[in-house]
Amino acid sequence: MTAYDDLRAHLRSAHLLGTTAALLSWDQETMMPKGAGAVRAEQLSLLAELQHQRTTDPRVADWLAACEADPRTQADPDRAANVRQWRRDHTRATRLPSALVAELAAHESTAQQGWATARSKDDYRRFQPLLDRMVVLQQQKADCLRLPGQSRWDALADLYEPGMTAALLRELFGPLRQQLVALRQRLTDGSEPDDAFQRQRIERPAQETFVRAVTTAFGFDPKFGRLDTSVHPFCTNVGNDVRLCTRFGDDDVLDALGSTMHECGHGLYEQGTEPEHFGTPLGEPVSLGIHESQSRLWENHVGRSAAFWRWCWPLAQRHLGAACDGFDAARVFRTANRVQPSLIRVEADEATYDLHVMVRFELEQALIDGQLGTANLPGEWNRLYREYLGVQVPNDRQGCLQDVHWSCGLFGYFPTYTLGNLYAAQFAAAADRALGGLDQLLERGNFTTLREWLRRQIHRHGRRHSPAELCQLVTGAPLSSAPFLAYLEQKLGSVYRLPA
Amino acid sequence: MTAYDDLRAHLRSAHLLGTTAALLSWDQETMMPKGAGAVRAEQLSLLAELQHQRTTDPRVADWLAACEADPRTQADPDRAANVRQWRRDHTRATRLPSALVAELAAHESTAQQGWATARSKDDYRRFQPLLDRMVVLQQQKADCLRLPGQSRWDALADLYEPGMTAALLRELFGPLRQQLVALRQRLTDGSEPDDAFQRQRIERPAQETFVRAVTTAFGFDPKFGRLDTSVHPFCTNVGNDVRLCTRFGDDDVLDALGSTMHECGHGLYEQGTEPEHFGTPLGEPVSLGIHESQSRLWENHVGRSAAFWRWCWPLAQRHLGAACDGFDAARVFRTANRVQPSLIRVEADEATYDLHVMVRFELEQALIDGQLGTANLPGEWNRLYREYLGVQVPNDRQGCLQDVHWSCGLFGYFPTYTLGNLYAAQFAAAADRALGGLDQLLERGNFTTLREWLRRQIHRHGRRHSPAELCQLVTGAPLSSAPFLAYLEQKLGSVYRLPA
Repeated sequence: MTAYDDLRAHLRSAHLLGTTAALLSWDQETMMPKGAGAVRAEQLSLLAELQHQRTTDPRVADWLAACEADPRTQADPDRAANVRQWRRDHTRATRLPSALVAELAAHESTAQQGWATARSKDDYRRFQPLLDRMVVLQQQKADCLRLPGQSRWDALADLYEPGMTAALLRELFGPLRQQLVALRQRLTDGSEPDDAFQRQRIERPAQETFVRAVTTAFGFDPKFGRLDTSVHPFCTNVGNDVRLCTRFGDDDVLDALGSTMHECGHGLYEQGTEPEHFGTPLGEPVSLGIHESQSRLWENHVGRSAAFWRWCWPLAQRHLGAACDGFDAARVFRTANRVQPSLIRVEADEATYDLHVMVRFELEQALIDGQLGTANLPGEWNRLYREYLGVQVPNDRQGCLQDVHWSCGLFGYFPTYTLGNLYAAQFAAAADRALGGLDQLLERGNFTTLREWLRRQIHRHGRRHSPAELCQLVTGAPLSSAPFLAYLEQKLGSVYRLPA
Repeated sequence: MTAYDDLRAHLRSAHLLGTTAALLSWDQETMMPKGAGAVRAEQLSLLAELQHQRTTDPRVADWLAACEADPRTQADPDRAANVRQWRRDHTRATRLPSALVAELAAHESTAQQGWATARSKDDYRRFQPLLDRMVVLQQQKADCLRLPGQSRWDALADLYEPGMTAALLRELFGPLRQQLVALRQRLTDGSEPDDAFQRQRIERPAQETFVRAVTTAFGFDPKFGRLDTSVHPFCTNVGNDVRLCTRFGDDDVLDALGSTMHECGHGLYEQGTEPEHFGTPLGEPVSLGIHESQSRLWENHVGRSAAFWRWCWPLAQRHLGAACDGFDAARVFRTANRVQPSLIRVEADEATYDLHVMVRFELEQALIDGQLGTANLPGEWNRLYREYLGVQVPNDRQGCLQDVHWSCGLFGYFPTYTLGNLYAAQFAAAADRALGGLDQLLERGNFTTLREWLRRQIHRHGRRHSPAELCQLVTGAPLSSAPFLAYLEQKLGSVYRLPA
């Protein structure tokens, strides 16, 4: 056994503990009876501790040093990439003292429960001291992680999107915001689609067989995954086994379909990684932004396109029956693309979603870097919603208490949603060029060609390239908001029947 | 922190790893997609290794010695009982060398897969070398575990039923076998019940709501558990969270009901342990025989009684609809108690089930203690089936290849099924006396009184008493086959309308 083999085996077992914890969390959201929560929390905390022990084991540093000194590492691109990423992970893990890791874990649990109560009672003051403490702990975490000259917020954001900085995001977000606001205003002159289709009551079993048929058509492999329901849609990989969860209401089949296609996009990324690299960085998704690009590409560029609806309509008629009477593919395509500025991020349409993200980006950066105190958060939140989205926030429940993220210690995370939208558009445009027109494939129900292209271009690389390198390799250009804006202008111009 | 507190916290975490593994196994049988088996096996093997490390940690020996020397231990009956059982577990765990534990785990996996193939192809010769090796490994395991003068088989059986020996079993089984054979012969002169009710095709959703209603009536608490379906029925506790699995066919609702009541009985035992003792021996079931007594008590003494069927009949009519037309409670009670010697243990009725167990007891003892070679197993199996059950075994698939146990390394385990039947009858008779007649309670649908009695008498004690002590405490007598035989004679005499 070489140091590389030892290290790989050791970190594979850490990965097995991580996927075991993922299964426990999946079960908690889908299957677990109410009374089992306390023991489940103990099980998860123990697994996290064991995983942290493995990743910070002193032998890891020795093995890493031996790998880096071994000429065989640089001679083999796979080894070199794995060692580079293991070093990155190890550096970050060992910079955090165990006491801080434990305190963060405990406070995340407390703050999340406190947030849930505060939100249900619309009582921000109840949450504020917990958020205060969370900000302090995140600042301490950032101070452990950050390099000389790096800002605290950048150090946190780099955990989710390697290489991303607030400065780069500002360059992207500034012009994007102006153009999104301008687009939204132009749409008010257009012809608004009706929402009659999605207001119909449809039995859940019918909705479910319909959305399952779509994931099958997209190529989600049931031999290595499954689809269930949960309160909040999500996707998790429990070890070569990808669990999608979606949600169903009594009405709004388009919401169920959109959630399912979104999670299916995440799932296809996970299923597209190389089995031979399981348990190493080359078998892992590269970043949250790239992950989100895959979900948004399947949800929006595929699933909200006119071509998709031409293919999907007979399927909808077969599964949804009478709910389709009096409608047609063109009308439902327009309904699926209605734009309506709203208060709630997770309900937002494609033209306003990123404005919600930008509000959070501004505020969390100011919180972490110390320009904003938590006492002023609701006021600033409401001011930015007026400015960016033109809506009046009536209460904190629909305002700054709506998202779970900050209570879970996720600072630097929100912008990955918008990066996902931008990457998705740039990847979709590249696929359209490379494959000689996506629409022709989609309207024939050929999803295989696109899926295999994404697998070759993105999924199978794992963490071999940085997100920025990957974008350049796949699209021939650095990340830009231009493809996203061009896509929205083109699609929404058609949906709203704007003059060209 | 005292040594007792340290030890308790340390072994609680070992228990959390065990319950985590239980969840992974549950998921494997109920939810896991086919392709995920290899990674799941790795996850389970890692958890087993981590759990073994914890239980054999050298600090455990130090803590145990400190507890045993501490006068506070003997002064507190709870502490004393936990320390006594921890010592027992630790002694057994440390007597097995890690290399043997690993070799056993690996061979169990190989042998189980080999068994499945051999069974499906009805090819005992294919399985024989794997069984040979398993017998050798089990002999090595027994040699590590056994005390001076103790036989190998007794050392293995003690793992599942503390204090049980082959000599004690022979005393119980000898007369029992003769009387069961005699009873079976007497029944041939009786009036055989018809099986028309169970041959009807009934939709699975109807069967499922029916059996769920029965578990609800029995008092299975859905806040701390759930009921699902699997190929083989089972019950597992994943941490204050009891998962029952049952099975449904297109016909034979009585099989689905029997399986469900059986697993529910196991589940009520698990749910009846004291939450304050979670993660210590006082919160654990005492033995497999006592566990099986709870499942058989609810399955047979409750669920196959005439009183139960008088209560259950309107429920069956409500959920099973037309399938009940032309039948009544008395007729279905008789159908549920048909006796028919068969080849397959898991399909056996109450009057012949234990004869299947006795065949296995004879053979596995001879294998482990060296009087029987694996080459002669099929012949001996078939000979004993002729002698005990009066049936001709047509092939090994329906003969010595039918059970998974030996391929999993479970030697000394089979007799706990019969012990469960004997304990169940003795407990049921004691409950009948203590509660002033079980039938009056059951026919009114009052299952609470019996369940709470079992909880007080058995469940809440955990491993405080040995199975033999518990039997004496609960019933005022040592274990005997008399209550079981009296129960069978009385019930089957009525079912088969034998002269009194």
